[in-house]
Amino acid sequence: MVSQLRQKIGGGPQDWSVSEIGDGNVNFIFRLQGPKGQVLMKQAVPYLRIVGESWPLSLKRNFFEFRALQTHSKLAPAYMPEVFSYNESTSSMIMEFLDDHLILRKGMMAGTEYPNFSEHISDYMAQTLFFTSDLALNAGEKKELMQLFCENIDLCKITEDLIFTDPYRKAPQNHWTTPELDSDVLSLQTDVPLKIAATEMKAKFLTHAQALIHGDLHSGSIMVNAEETKVIDPEFAFFGPMGFDMGLLFANFFMSYFSQFSHEEKERNQYENWILRQIEEVWKGFAAKFSKLWDSDLKGDYLAPQFSEGEQRKQIIQTMRKKYLQELFADSIRFTGCEMIRRIVGLAHVADLEQIKDPKTRAMAERRCLRMAREIMVNHSKYTEIEHLTQLAKSMRIQT
Amino acid sequence: MVSQLRQKIGGGPQDWSVSEIGDGNVNFIFRLQGPKGQVLMKQAVPYLRIVGESWPLSLKRNFFEFRALQTHSKLAPAYMPEVFSYNESTSSMIMEFLDDHLILRKGMMAGTEYPNFSEHISDYMAQTLFFTSDLALNAGEKKELMQLFCENIDLCKITEDLIFTDPYRKAPQNHWTTPELDSDVLSLQTDVPLKIAATEMKAKFLTHAQALIHGDLHSGSIMVNAEETKVIDPEFAFFGPMGFDMGLLFANFFMSYFSQFSHEEKERNQYENWILRQIEEVWKGFAAKFSKLWDSDLKGDYLAPQFSEGEQRKQIIQTMRKKYLQELFADSIRFTGCEMIRRIVGLAHVADLEQIKDPKTRAMAERRCLRMAREIMVNHSKYTEIEHLTQLAKSMRIQT
Repeated sequence: MVSQLRQKIGGGPQDWSVSEIGDGNVNFIFRLQGPKGQVLMKQAVPYLRIVGESWPLSLKRNFFEFRALQTHSKLAPAYMPEVFSYNESTSSMIMEFLDDHLILRKGMMAGTEYPNFSEHISDYMAQTLFFTSDLALNAGEKKELMQLFCENIDLCKITEDLIFTDPYRKAPQNHWTTPELDSDVLSLQTDVPLKIAATEMKAKFLTHAQALIHGDLHSGSIMVNAEETKVIDPEFAFFGPMGFDMGLLFANFFMSYFSQFSHEEKERNQYENWILRQIEEVWKGFAAKFSKLWDSDLKGDYLAPQFSEGEQRKQIIQTMRKKYLQELFADSIRFTGCEMIRRIVGLAHVADLEQIKDPKTRAMAERRCLRMAREIMVNHSKYTEIEHLTQLAKSMRIQT
Repeated sequence: MVSQLRQKIGGGPQDWSVSEIGDGNVNFIFRLQGPKGQVLMKQAVPYLRIVGESWPLSLKRNFFEFRALQTHSKLAPAYMPEVFSYNESTSSMIMEFLDDHLILRKGMMAGTEYPNFSEHISDYMAQTLFFTSDLALNAGEKKELMQLFCENIDLCKITEDLIFTDPYRKAPQNHWTTPELDSDVLSLQTDVPLKIAATEMKAKFLTHAQALIHGDLHSGSIMVNAEETKVIDPEFAFFGPMGFDMGLLFANFFMSYFSQFSHEEKERNQYENWILRQIEEVWKGFAAKFSKLWDSDLKGDYLAPQFSEGEQRKQIIQTMRKKYLQELFADSIRFTGCEMIRRIVGLAHVADLEQIKDPKTRAMAERRCLRMAREIMVNHSKYTEIEHLTQLAKSMRIQT
């Protein structure tokens, strides 16, 4: 590792400085600076960082992150950080230091528009999800890759508990804006149709081995600047439902949207519109790119090339693709709701809402999120186009 | 192994006789007879027995069968043969010789009623499917078991090809009663809604990791007598959709039903009714037993016990259980159709129909199967109760 570092950052150990820079919930992040440059080192500790040693966590999560980065980098290299090495004995990875990029969440809190974002992230999702699914892989290839990620038990368990279970029960780690949201949380935790919807999505998460998903694709896992978009931190990766990635992204954009009115220093109406436009563009861009791949790269066992030919094949592909995207959209909006709820009621919140100092204002933003989440989880079949969702957000935006 | 055999069958190698007794499609089966008893030895060869060396097949299938037998034996011991040993180096297993039992398919061809069958097989399915699903397992336990069976690639591939793909295309291994069924097969292979249904079920088979299923639960994988029912040959086991096991069983019962009129030596009306009654009893028995387990053993991550309590928990369980069974029923009848079609048009046929010597009579039975299969695959939503299915069979039974 040292020789590799000499090459990347110049000099030798005596010339290097190390600083901890991460604020992640899961791992430690260090910057290694040398005379010629810098790299990032990500290291796992045997527990969940945000909670501490009372929540043990397999060190192997770095291995899964490394393998996910490897797999996705082959498919969408433009949107991934370069990884230089993985060291099993120290549970650490050394990778490109993205010093020209900002965490998307921070950029959105500052009201910054990123002109290429929707184009990039929709491309990233179309490539990584299509090419790790049965649409592109034969069943044997998929099972081999899936076998590897079956072991990513601890991190999946975090999602299972923190997203699908805890917010709906009296869990000790839950917290929310209190007392403002107390009655909202009580009614959420006794809302049978909502709890059924959450259980259905949990079941989907547990059983629907659709593609190698990122597993934690919120706006804190994306780094951006005006030109580039980089997706980081896929340690939650496993074979799960594609809509989970889409839903987390949507949810974090909607939460940012609902938080914007709190920035009093500057009118944010235009930025609110930018956010909703991103959501529309991400879905439409994804659907267009993903659909195109059905024409060029449908080589997996899902629809074996020899299964049908000519006009008939076109007809079958058209029908199946439409159904596939419809189901994916329905999954996405229900996962969107799950993520919004857990970020307001559960253990890990988002800075977009947390930075609102006045509890009444924060509770107002959060209540709008909770209402929208409930509506799209329980009545998801009413929302079949992405504009239905952005319209709903607009109508919730003006509710008290 | 030898010392174990001495104990089981008495004497020593000089006293033992070996005879090949199997007529399976996949492996070789031997009977080892000693002075005190006999055992069965099942040995894998590195190819698919029914085709020969041109179809290579992993020897490890015996390992998956062994592990599936182990897992299912813990859950439903009364319905499983006892396994004495597994030997990796010879890809063979030694197990109980079931000499008081007949292959169910043969019994049904002879018109024999088995009074305990529906009770037993519905119990076997309820126990093995419930307790290997997220309903009973936590996600980590399930993923560990799933990881093991991810490697069962070759045998899953047989199903993917022979059940979901080949019958719908001009595949070299296909064969059917010709020329009688030529036009039926041609229209099947150009039937777009049917091919879409088959593709949807293949997708479910590829992605829906619901439980450790048997994977080949036809009437040739079940041994019976008046008292006992034993399920054998789970080498196709993997984490797949529960409805696949149910569908294969239904399909083979319907094919037996449609074949009965050909037995001219004896009126079979009563036996036809027995078959349909079994189908109804199997589903209803399964649904009742499976439902009961939701009350007593819902301890998996699907619905964490702490997720809700009291009256609310009852309400959630009732709704989820109903939905779960509805979806399972819909899956089951569509897989039923897939299995019926492939047994008439694909590589591996069933003796129930093959034994009909007169091609016109055979084609008549097979055409009824194909029509029913097409109907329940394409219009499955019309059939929501098991009686809808048996009624449909009755109406198809009198068509020419």
